[in-house]
Amino acid sequence: LQSKLPNVGTTIFTKMSALAEEHKALNLAQGFPEFDCSPDLQRLVDKYVRSGKNQYAPMPGAFPLREAIARKTFEASGHEYHPVTDITVTSGATEALFVAISTVVHPGDEVIVFEPAYDSYVPAIELSGGVPVFVTLDPQYDSIDWEAVKARITEKTRAIIINTPHNPTGKVWAASDLQALASLAEEHDLIVISDEVYEYIVFDGREHTSVASIPSLAGRSFVCGSFGKTFHTTGWKLGYCLAPAQLTAEFRKIHQFLVFSVVTPLQFAVAEYLNEPEHYLSLSAFYERKRDLFNEAIKDIGFVLKPSEGSFFQNVSYASLSDENDLALAERLTREVGVASIPVSAFYAGETDFKTLRFCFAKHDETLLKAAGLLNAAR
Amino acid sequence: LQSKLPNVGTTIFTKMSALAEEHKALNLAQGFPEFDCSPDLQRLVDKYVRSGKNQYAPMPGAFPLREAIARKTFEASGHEYHPVTDITVTSGATEALFVAISTVVHPGDEVIVFEPAYDSYVPAIELSGGVPVFVTLDPQYDSIDWEAVKARITEKTRAIIINTPHNPTGKVWAASDLQALASLAEEHDLIVISDEVYEYIVFDGREHTSVASIPSLAGRSFVCGSFGKTFHTTGWKLGYCLAPAQLTAEFRKIHQFLVFSVVTPLQFAVAEYLNEPEHYLSLSAFYERKRDLFNEAIKDIGFVLKPSEGSFFQNVSYASLSDENDLALAERLTREVGVASIPVSAFYAGETDFKTLRFCFAKHDETLLKAAGLLNAAR
Ligand SMILES: CSCCC(=O)C(=O)O
Ligand SMILES: CSCCC(=O)C(=O)O
Repeated sequence: LQSKLPNVGTTIFTKMSALAEEHKALNLAQGFPEFDCSPDLQRLVDKYVRSGKNQYAPMPGAFPLREAIARKTFEASGHEYHPVTDITVTSGATEALFVAISTVVHPGDEVIVFEPAYDSYVPAIELSGGVPVFVTLDPQYDSIDWEAVKARITEKTRAIIINTPHNPTGKVWAASDLQALASLAEEHDLIVISDEVYEYIVFDGREHTSVASIPSLAGRSFVCGSFGKTFHTTGWKLGYCLAPAQLTAEFRKIHQFLVFSVVTPLQFAVAEYLNEPEHYLSLSAFYERKRDLFNEAIKDIGFVLKPSEGSFFQNVSYASLSDENDLALAERLTREVGVASIPVSAFYAGETDFKTLRFCFAKHDETLLKAAGLLNAAR
Repeated sequence: LQSKLPNVGTTIFTKMSALAEEHKALNLAQGFPEFDCSPDLQRLVDKYVRSGKNQYAPMPGAFPLREAIARKTFEASGHEYHPVTDITVTSGATEALFVAISTVVHPGDEVIVFEPAYDSYVPAIELSGGVPVFVTLDPQYDSIDWEAVKARITEKTRAIIINTPHNPTGKVWAASDLQALASLAEEHDLIVISDEVYEYIVFDGREHTSVASIPSLAGRSFVCGSFGKTFHTTGWKLGYCLAPAQLTAEFRKIHQFLVFSVVTPLQFAVAEYLNEPEHYLSLSAFYERKRDLFNEAIKDIGFVLKPSEGSFFQNVSYASLSDENDLALAERLTREVGVASIPVSAFYAGETDFKTLRFCFAKHDETLLKAAGLLNAAR
C-alpha cells in the first residue's frame, strides 16, 4: 500500500498521553479537561437517550441545535447564520476543519498556514492535493506580520487558515488583525477557514473577535467551532461549521459522505444546555483563575512565561535553563519528573527548536499545584 | 467556489425523508428502525456519562470496545484481529468506508463498484481522484458474474468494494462468491473494502460470510461494520474498521485527522452491551418475522417481490402495474398514498429504470400493516 500521508506518524498528543500513562505522570500534555461536564448536561443526555432520540439526525444536524448555534453566534458577532442553509453540525471541529479544507482545496492549490499550527491542518491540505505555504510567527507571537503574509500569496493561493484563540500559544487575535485579514482576503479573493474552538476562553478582559463579526469575512469564511472545549466534553465530538449558503452547500456534499450525520442524543442535550448562556460565558473567568494559579506556582523555576491570552495552554521558554531540544525535555520531564507537556516544535512542519513547552492548565487545582511542585523540586 | 463533487445533490435518503415528513407519509424510505434501542443499553449510556467517560477516547477507540469487537469477530469468522493494531472505532461505517477508500485510492486508480451501490462509495472514490468502474448486477441480482468482474480489471485497478448483506437488494453473498473474490483479488493484487453493516440480519437459515473468514481475503481487506443497524442506534454513529496492522496503520493516519476519535461514553456502553451475544444474535429472527409480515400484507398488490435474503429491505418490482419511472412513483406514493420508499435507480450512477422500489421493514408491525393497507387501497 502506497501511503497517502508518508510523513505522518502518531500525533504528538497520542504519543505524550501514552508516555504519561506509562510513567504515571500528570498529563498536562494533550488538551482536555481533567474535570467532568456538568451533571445537568449529563442528565440531559439521559433524557434524550430515553426519549427515543437514537436514530439518524438530519444530515446537517438536529434543528434545535442549529437554532441554538445561530442564536449564540448572533449574540456574539451580530452575524445572522441561517440554521437551514448556513449551519452544519459536525463530528467535532476536527471534522469541520477537514471538510472545509476538502471543500476548498483542489490539487495544486496553495493554502496559507500560520506556524505554529494545529497538527490536522497540513495533512488535510495534502490529502486534497494542496500545498501548505507557511508563515512562521515570531517565537513571541507578539504581532502578525501582514507584509510577510502578503509576500507569500501567489496566483495559486486559494485559502488561508487562521486560529484564534490560538493553539498552542494562547494568542488572541486583535480586531485589527482581522481587519488586515479582511483586506487581504478580499484583494486576493481568498477563502478563510477559521478555527475558533477556544472562543469562550479569553483572559484579562480581552474579547474574542470572530471572523463572523466582520461582514466581508463572514461572506467568504468557514468558521469552525466545538462544544468539547466549552462544556468539558472533548469526548463527545460535537462541533459545527458556519458558512454562507453557497459554501455550506458544497461543505455538506462532502460531510454527508464522510459521516452523514452526528450523534443525535448529544445534539439535543447540548441544544437545550445552550439555552442558558451562563453555561459558556463563565468559562473565561474559570480558566483565567487556573492560569494564574499555575503561573504563580511555577514562577520561580526560571521558565520565561509567554503570554497566555486565551485557550487553556501556557507556553514556557526554558532556553536559559537547558540546551535540550523541546521534545527531549518534554519526554524527560514526563519520565523523570512525572509531568507531561507538549513540545511546541511539534506544531511546526520543519525542524525548529524554540525551547518552548506547552502546559495544559485545564486540570484540577491540586493537579496544577502538584505538577508545579514536581517541577520546582526538579529544578 | 469550484465544486469538488459537481454531480452530487442531496442524498435520496435525505430527500425522501423530507418528502415523507412534509406529507406525513409513513417513512419506509430511509433505512433506520422506527423502534428504540434497548432500555438496558440506554442505562449503560447513562452509567458511563455519569462516571466521567466524557473526554477524548484514544484515537483508535476505547480499548474495551476494540476487545469486544475482536471477540465477536473471532466467534463469527475465526479470524483474530488484534485490538491494538488491527481495529479502529469510527464515526459510523460511513466514516470507516470513507477513510478506507481515502487510504487506498490515489489519483487515477480504478475501483470496482457493484451496482446498485450504496451512495457514499462513488463520491469517496472521486474525492481521492479515483475512477469508479461499475459492474452492474442483473436486476434480479441472482448471481454474480465473475467473468464480467474480471473483464473490468485493468492495470490501474486498485481495489474492489463489496457489500454483503447488500443494500438495497438484500442479497447475501454465497461463500462461493467470496472464494471467487479471493482468487481474483489475489491474482490481481487488489485491496478489498467490504461493507458488512447488516452482518447480523440474514434470513431463512442463511449465514453471513464475512471477508474476515477467508484468510487470504482478511489479509488484504478493510472490513467495515456498524452498531447502528445491530442495536437500533443509527443516530449514535458508531462503527469500526478491521484490517491487518499495516493497512490499519495507514487507515489511522487519515482517521486521526478526520475525526480524531469517536464518542467516548457510547463506546463504553456498547462494549459492555456486547458481552451478551444474544443482543445481536437474535436480530435475524426479529427481522425475518417483520419481512414475512410485510410481504404477506402486500402480496395481492401485483408487485413482484424480489428475494430479501438479509438486511431490512424488501425490493419490489412494479413493471406490470405502471409505466412510471421509479423516482416518479416513489414520490407519488409518498404524496398521494402516504407511503415513502426509495427508488432503486438512485443506487445507479447512470440513467436506469428497473421499476423497482425499496421498502424498509425496520418498522413497528402496525406501521408495516398500515403501509400495506394504504398501498392495497391505492391499487
Ligand atoms: C485531538 S487531541 C489534541 C487535543 C488538543 O486540541 C491539543 O492538545 O492541542
Ligand atoms: C445514512 S442515511 C441512509 C440509511 C441507509 O443505510 C439506507 O437507507 O440505505
